Amino acid sequence: MSRGDAFRTVLNAKRDDFMPAEFDEFIAMGARLADAGGAILGRYFRQPLAIDLKSDDTPVTIADREAETAMRGLITETFPDHGIIGEEHGAERADSDYVWVLDPIDGTRAFLTGKPMFGALIALTRNGTPILGVIDQPVAGERWIGAADRTTRFNGKDAATRATRALDQAIFNTTSPDLFDGADRDAFARLKAAARETHYGGDCYAYGLLASGHIDVIAEAGLKPYDYCALAPVVEGAGGVITDWRGARLTLESDGRVLAAGNAALHAEALEALNHG
Amino acid sequence: MSRGDAFRTVLNAKRDDFMPAEFDEFIAMGARLADAGGAILGRYFRQPLAIDLKSDDTPVTIADREAETAMRGLITETFPDHGIIGEEHGAERADSDYVWVLDPIDGTRAFLTGKPMFGALIALTRNGTPILGVIDQPVAGERWIGAADRTTRFNGKDAATRATRALDQAIFNTTSPDLFDGADRDAFARLKAAARETHYGGDCYAYGLLASGHIDVIAEAGLKPYDYCALAPVVEGAGGVITDWRGARLTLESDGRVLAAGNAALHAEALEALNHG
Repeated sequence: MSRGDAFRTVLNAKRDDFMPAEFDEFIAMGARLADAGGAILGRYFRQPLAIDLKSDDTPVTIADREAETAMRGLITETFPDHGIIGEEHGAERADSDYVWVLDPIDGTRAFLTGKPMFGALIALTRNGTPILGVIDQPVAGERWIGAADRTTRFNGKDAATRATRALDQAIFNTTSPDLFDGADRDAFARLKAAARETHYGGDCYAYGLLASGHIDVIAEAGLKPYDYCALAPVVEGAGGVITDWRGARLTLESDGRVLAAGNAALHAEALEALNHG
Repeated sequence: MSRGDAFRTVLNAKRDDFMPAEFDEFIAMGARLADAGGAILGRYFRQPLAIDLKSDDTPVTIADREAETAMRGLITETFPDHGIIGEEHGAERADSDYVWVLDPIDGTRAFLTGKPMFGALIALTRNGTPILGVIDQPVAGERWIGAADRTTRFNGKDAATRATRALDQAIFNTTSPDLFDGADRDAFARLKAAARETHYGGDCYAYGLLASGHIDVIAEAGLKPYDYCALAPVVEGAGGVITDWRGARLTLESDGRVLAAGNAALHAEALEALNHG
């Protein structure tokens, strides 16, 4: 699809109503990428690994790098005109209509502490908007696949968020209180105070659990496109709502603040708590 | 063993050097209890459950109660003179020499959010000191068994802590920053600042991961005997050190502040960080 075609699609459709003819192929590719990455992660899990610190002080290992390399190879071989943005090996052809966005290990700290709560994240964006997302936990053998306008699948079955509608009844989850700085920290504290309970840890895995109806609300900040792009189709396809902290849909250009909830009513109440002290 | 015998044992032995003749039977019982509890927890995991709040505002479900009931039944049937202290159903014969200390679900919040990071905790104390501990994660099929003066076993293989010796190289884990109040919060902040990285979540499962060499230091507060008694034999039998925040061994009478580390040098440095600002 040319840029011009893509633009006309946007003009004619409210959101991603026009799915590409090759969408089934893309979805199958998401699963293949997860298989390839997961095989590598499973091999390195709980093995002694050298830990390097990147320029942003986050840890990285050979497992991250090898898994991303394997996934990039498959994409380039199968869809040579698609772009790729990966956490470990950067961007190529990022101005393509279709761009794969990869995080080989989301939750590297969980991976490093031996907790099967990390995941590989695989997204496909079309003109900047995620239309396909995979959250894959290879050790537990758990995989969520979300695709625009389709029901999210968890290990081959439909996934659905649960119906908790009031924030004071909701289970709120966030990976770490250390995600929040400055005014974000106050916003987080307000949401935490308004929710029934707060639970820590989980990274991408928590969004899968939200899609499956076990967690009601997640708020995080400081995420990168490869941390959040895959989450959107998974959460939306299960009946949830996921946006930035101003209520806008997630795109490659979002600011890394993410709010997900099991339904629109709960999302609206959580958004209010974040924004109004 | 009478109280008098027990006292002479304490006089004659530095620590638990004199293991009872029936120790192998007790260890086998620990595994049977984990099997019985785990079968029930596995059945309720990720199912919609009514959540009751106890007087201390912590959540409890039918899964907690049924699992503990099943374990208590087995103990009473097999060792009718042993005492039992359980999180959900209280104490009976707690003045016996041998007392089983049970937490059917440690990490009820993890259980409720669908994370396979909770565990059943089963301890046997002799005159107040833990001599046997089981940490069981039934969904992942992972079990640590620690017994005084024996090497901790993880799924049938020896477990060993790792050799990280300096706190600034150590991975520090704690279930939640909300465990700490008042001066404990400052102590926690000092330890966190001194460690290389901090990771949240895990409950008892994190102590298993420490015993297996994936986490270096854990500090928590506000734990109850059923939360910590099972941890001590698991950590010690893998080469680690676990005490309260004053460096004293854990007993039924401890104050609920727990510090575990992979080795004595690291434990000493962490103890210093907790106690001296």
